[in-house]
Amino acid sequence: MSFINLGLVGFGKIARDQHQPALAESDEFRLVASADPHSLHESVPGYAALDDMLAAHPEIDAVAICTPTSLRYSQAHLALEQGKHVLLEKPPGATLSEVEDLALLAERQGCTLFAAWHSRFAPGVADAREWLRERQVQRVEIDWKEDVRVWHPGQAWIWEPAGMGVFDPGINALSIITEILPHAFFLRVARLWIPCNCQAPIAARLDFSDALATPIVANFDFRQSGPPTWSIHVETDCGRLSLSQGGRRLEVAGQCVLDADEREYPGLYARFAELIRSGGSEVDLAPLRHVADACLLGWRETTEAFHE
Amino acid sequence: MSFINLGLVGFGKIARDQHQPALAESDEFRLVASADPHSLHESVPGYAALDDMLAAHPEIDAVAICTPTSLRYSQAHLALEQGKHVLLEKPPGATLSEVEDLALLAERQGCTLFAAWHSRFAPGVADAREWLRERQVQRVEIDWKEDVRVWHPGQAWIWEPAGMGVFDPGINALSIITEILPHAFFLRVARLWIPCNCQAPIAARLDFSDALATPIVANFDFRQSGPPTWSIHVETDCGRLSLSQGGRRLEVAGQCVLDADEREYPGLYARFAELIRSGGSEVDLAPLRHVADACLLGWRETTEAFHE
Repeated sequence: MSFINLGLVGFGKIARDQHQPALAESDEFRLVASADPHSLHESVPGYAALDDMLAAHPEIDAVAICTPTSLRYSQAHLALEQGKHVLLEKPPGATLSEVEDLALLAERQGCTLFAAWHSRFAPGVADAREWLRERQVQRVEIDWKEDVRVWHPGQAWIWEPAGMGVFDPGINALSIITEILPHAFFLRVARLWIPCNCQAPIAARLDFSDALATPIVANFDFRQSGPPTWSIHVETDCGRLSLSQGGRRLEVAGQCVLDADEREYPGLYARFAELIRSGGSEVDLAPLRHVADACLLGWRETTEAFHE
Repeated sequence: MSFINLGLVGFGKIARDQHQPALAESDEFRLVASADPHSLHESVPGYAALDDMLAAHPEIDAVAICTPTSLRYSQAHLALEQGKHVLLEKPPGATLSEVEDLALLAERQGCTLFAAWHSRFAPGVADAREWLRERQVQRVEIDWKEDVRVWHPGQAWIWEPAGMGVFDPGINALSIITEILPHAFFLRVARLWIPCNCQAPIAARLDFSDALATPIVANFDFRQSGPPTWSIHVETDCGRLSLSQGGRRLEVAGQCVLDADEREYPGLYARFAELIRSGGSEVDLAPLRHVADACLLGWRETTEAFHE
C-alpha cells in the first residue's frame, strides 16, 4: 500500500510534541511539508502559508490542521476545495456551524474530514466502551482538574472566549464519555466560574442527564495544585468502572485491568488512514456541542482575578 | 381526510395568543385537550400533567409543546415514547444535545418531530428565499431591536441563562436568515452586553461570514425605545432585498412587493400537518446553534443593571 503524503498546517507545540513523532513512526503516512508563518520544521520543507505548501507539493494527499481555531475553517475549506483529506485537531473549529459546513463540503468533494478527539485514543477507552455496552449505568462522575500554571504556561489565549478556559482540557473528558457511555446525554444545569479579568471559565460544574435520568456530574478545575486528576468513574449494575490518568489506566470492579503507556496520536493517525482508505469521514461534534450548551445554559459567577 | 387530534402542552401566553387561534381555524387539527398545572383551557378538558392528558385521551395523535424549555425534553420524550407526533415551540430545547437526542427517538418511533420556527412562516419569507436563490449576496444587515419593557413585561426568566436575553427575539431573525440565504454561514466575532444584575445579554452584535467571505452583521438590542425594528437587508448583484416588520413586508430593489398581515401560526400548523401526513420530521437546529456559538465565542461586556 502506498504512503499517504501529509502536510502539517500549524507547527506549534501540539504538532511538535504529538503529530511529528506519531507521523515519524507511522507506516501509513509520510510527512512531506509543513506550513506555519512562525515556526519552521527542521527536516521537511516549510512554507509560510498553506496555499504555498499545496502549490509546491501537489503530491500531498492530506493535511493535519493544528492552527488556532479561528484560522481552521478557511484552511480546511481551501484544502478540501483542492481535494485534500483533512484532519482537524481538537476542538475542530471555533464554532459548531463552521464545522457543519466543512462536513458538507467534504462530502461534496469526496474527501475525508476527520474531527479528531485525541483522548478517545487513550489506551483504556475502547475497553471501557466495550465493557459498558451491556451494563446499566447508574451514576457517572468526571473529575478533570489540573494546575493551569503547570499545564498551560504562557497560554494567554486560553482565557479568551475561543480559548474556552477549563473546557480546553475538559473537552477531552467530554470526548471520552461521549464515546464510552451507551446512551446520549445532555446538560441540565451548569455553573461556570470566570475570573474577573478573564473571558473564559477557570472552573465548571456540569450536571448532565440522559433519557433514563442517570446523573452524570463533571467537575472541571484549573485551580488544582499538585498532580492532575483526570478520571472518570462509572457506577453500574456490575460494579464500578474507573478510567484514570486521562484514560491510560482502567479499573473494573476494583481490579486494574489495564495500565498502559500513552499512545493517543499513533492511534489517531491509524484511524485517519483507515478513514481515507475507506472513503469515509468522522465528524462527531458532540464534545464541542456540550461545551457550547454549557456556555448557553451555564450560570456564570465572577471569581478572583487570575494572574499567571 | 380525518382531523389530527392535538393536545396543547403548556397553556401560557404563546399558546393562548397564537396556537389556540391557529388551531381554531385549522381544517386539519382538532384541539382535544390541554395540559398545564397553572392554566386551564376554557373550552376543552384541561389536565395538570401531560401523562394524565394522554391517559385520558388516547385519541390524541399529536402534541404541541409550549412549556419553558427546561421541561420540554422530558415531555417530548414521553409523548414520542407513546407514539405521538410532537411540535416544539421555539427554541426547541434548552440545549442542542437534548434536541439531537429527541430527533433520534422520533426516528426510532416513526413519529414526526417538528422544531417549529414561527418567523419562518412570516408572509415575506418564502418569496425572499425564492428571490435570493439565484442572486449573489454581497452583504447582509440584520437589525432586531425592541423595547424589552414593552415586549417582555414581567418576564424575569428572560434574564436567566436559559431565557437567552435578547436572543429570545434575536433567534427569530436567525431563523429567517438561515432560511432565506443561499449559503450556510457561521460566526466570526461576537460581542454580548450583559447587565451586571443579569445572566443573559441585553444586546449583541454578531459578525458572521460564509464560505465566500460575505459579511453578515446582526445587531440585536433590547434597549430600543419607540417602535421595534425587525428588519433584514440583503445587498445583492441585482439590488437590495429588505424584509421588515418581522417578515410581513418585503421590498425588492426599492419596490414594495408584499405587505401582508401576520399569519405565522396558521402556516406553521399547515407545515406540521404536512409533515405528519408524509411521515417526515423537520428539526433544523441552525438558529439555536448560532446562539450557542455566540455564547461560546462571544466577548462579554458588563453593562448597567437592568430594572424593569
